[in-house]
Amino acid sequence: MTFGIDDLPVRDELRGKTPYGAPQLDVPVRLNTNENPYPLPEALVERIAERVREAARDLNRYPDRDAVELRTRLAAYLTETSGYAVDVRNLWAANGSNEVIQQLLQTFGGPGRTAIGFEPSYSMHGLIARGTGTGWISGPRREDFTIDVPAAEKAIAEHRPDVVFITTPNNPTGTAVPAETVLALHDAAQAAKPSMVVVDEAYIEFSHGASLLPLLDGRPNLVISRTMSKAFGAAGLRLGYLAAHPAVVDAVQLVRLPYHLSAVTQATALAALEHTGTLLKYVEQLKAERDRLVAELRAAGYEVTESDANFVQFGRFADSHEVWRKILDRGVLVRDNGVPGWLRVTAGTPQENDAFLDAVRELKKEQSA
Amino acid sequence: MTFGIDDLPVRDELRGKTPYGAPQLDVPVRLNTNENPYPLPEALVERIAERVREAARDLNRYPDRDAVELRTRLAAYLTETSGYAVDVRNLWAANGSNEVIQQLLQTFGGPGRTAIGFEPSYSMHGLIARGTGTGWISGPRREDFTIDVPAAEKAIAEHRPDVVFITTPNNPTGTAVPAETVLALHDAAQAAKPSMVVVDEAYIEFSHGASLLPLLDGRPNLVISRTMSKAFGAAGLRLGYLAAHPAVVDAVQLVRLPYHLSAVTQATALAALEHTGTLLKYVEQLKAERDRLVAELRAAGYEVTESDANFVQFGRFADSHEVWRKILDRGVLVRDNGVPGWLRVTAGTPQENDAFLDAVRELKKEQSA
Repeated sequence: MTFGIDDLPVRDELRGKTPYGAPQLDVPVRLNTNENPYPLPEALVERIAERVREAARDLNRYPDRDAVELRTRLAAYLTETSGYAVDVRNLWAANGSNEVIQQLLQTFGGPGRTAIGFEPSYSMHGLIARGTGTGWISGPRREDFTIDVPAAEKAIAEHRPDVVFITTPNNPTGTAVPAETVLALHDAAQAAKPSMVVVDEAYIEFSHGASLLPLLDGRPNLVISRTMSKAFGAAGLRLGYLAAHPAVVDAVQLVRLPYHLSAVTQATALAALEHTGTLLKYVEQLKAERDRLVAELRAAGYEVTESDANFVQFGRFADSHEVWRKILDRGVLVRDNGVPGWLRVTAGTPQENDAFLDAVRELKKEQSA
Repeated sequence: MTFGIDDLPVRDELRGKTPYGAPQLDVPVRLNTNENPYPLPEALVERIAERVREAARDLNRYPDRDAVELRTRLAAYLTETSGYAVDVRNLWAANGSNEVIQQLLQTFGGPGRTAIGFEPSYSMHGLIARGTGTGWISGPRREDFTIDVPAAEKAIAEHRPDVVFITTPNNPTGTAVPAETVLALHDAAQAAKPSMVVVDEAYIEFSHGASLLPLLDGRPNLVISRTMSKAFGAAGLRLGYLAAHPAVVDAVQLVRLPYHLSAVTQATALAALEHTGTLLKYVEQLKAERDRLVAELRAAGYEVTESDANFVQFGRFADSHEVWRKILDRGVLVRDNGVPGWLRVTAGTPQENDAFLDAVRELKKEQSA
């Protein structure tokens, strides 16, 4: 026997577990991780090189620990796109929204505390809870994957969680959550005990509806988290952020690793923020492609969950993993998120989406043959 | 009253705390955070811009989650400089050695577990323990800041910690820890219970002695952590790494946030690793300057702790904070790490060190006047 993980004194709850991550396969069409299919425009690539060159001249020094310029620009982006005024004191940034969520759980969750999410949802919420010693409660959803407010309120009243996660648009199912639902769960959570409500808006730029940023007004226990991975087409950058009451921004600084955001990350993100206009045009194209996927999948005889994101959940399958494999055999990688009966496809370029649609239409024909 | 941190449901142990971090003051000579004073050579700056430009063309995609190329190159660097063979399976990297340590504590520490360090030492060990819910035990040192092996063994036998931190060269005191001490504490820790021993070699390139990497042979519970912040002159990059048995590398992947290392971080670090030869020449200059600081401080009548790092601890002062302020009044920022009677100065450029030495010589004169 080789010496392995279980021969080390790892925490009991980690024993037998495997690392999170979609298979990284070398396939012509990859529509499995909700990446933006459009490479950054060449002018932005040059601007990144320029800003990083400048940052590299000072790389022997620690970066701005408080990332003031970056946070100011991110706040301006939120203000411009939502009409709700956000400033640097409301804004915090970290290495991907995963690190934002980890910092929130270290501050407001942790040992002896619990967090709830309404599943299926973004599975990292539960995994980061585990990683931070926070108890995890799996809350309910309806058959159509929307949140059943009375059932959710009941779960909150019963478990009295310290942190409530609401993902809108939800991942992997795709549907946005109405503001009234968020307000109802926020109020239920506060009625149960002083707690934090984290609204994960990773995909909000693709939504038919608006951001819930205005709900921050007068609600210091509410947090909106965001990412540059999707709408900004910068998954490789790892830049997540949150907007909240300044006290929340102060609080996460008690657990953030000092100088957590590198000078090159700050420089690259700042360059991308200079090109917001161009990047948001790609978002419009992706929304149109997403709507086309929904329509074509339905026309081909599939069930589709309403989507406000850059991905579409489709089904239903007796054996979704088998269908996943058959689509893969046709050169298209989609995602099996473990939701029984369903798969998820990311909206890619028109050509990529055509390849995917050809594959699933073929499967339907095969099935009825 | 303004709504503040204490009005939020933050964890009890965070109440009343302030974020970690040295004051970032605008002072002509900053010798307070052990940064490398030499900017990266212009050829390397250009190479970084080039590699980041290339990475930016693919920035819409997630980065290599396993950072294989970077880990391979870091392993090669360790092999070349230590003579001890390290390969990619032994090597793990994260956003600064702080994140490496956080991942180790999430895996091997955490709620219901404890970690010990011998203080004064790198204060982030204890702070990251707090952030991960790991109990912290402050182990003893001798009056001269070396580790008292029998006293340390006794503390380990008594507290049976899950994780033992040994910093060599130690920060903020500067002295390297002999291999025999590390071995004795490793054996004491294993005798007490299955546990991990983390040797933090952040400053090892500046040491008079060699790295303890060869101790990894046959010791799967030993971990050596490193950083590119100091010897590589890349504090702004935030790149830390560890070498250990492959099972340790597998284990930390159970808690690492997926895609934690951005594509720009990986590209920048790879560029810096191409210029190792040049960067290690700066290390030799800094070692010479460090030795000069030790000699000149002693000649000026100060006590100095033996230094194997790019900084020097000097004293003794009845009121070290008062002396810190007087040095600052002379335009030189050094560090008050809270070690009673002592201050710490980073080895800067010859000009910066001269400015510092002038200031402290003046203070001595003033004192005896």
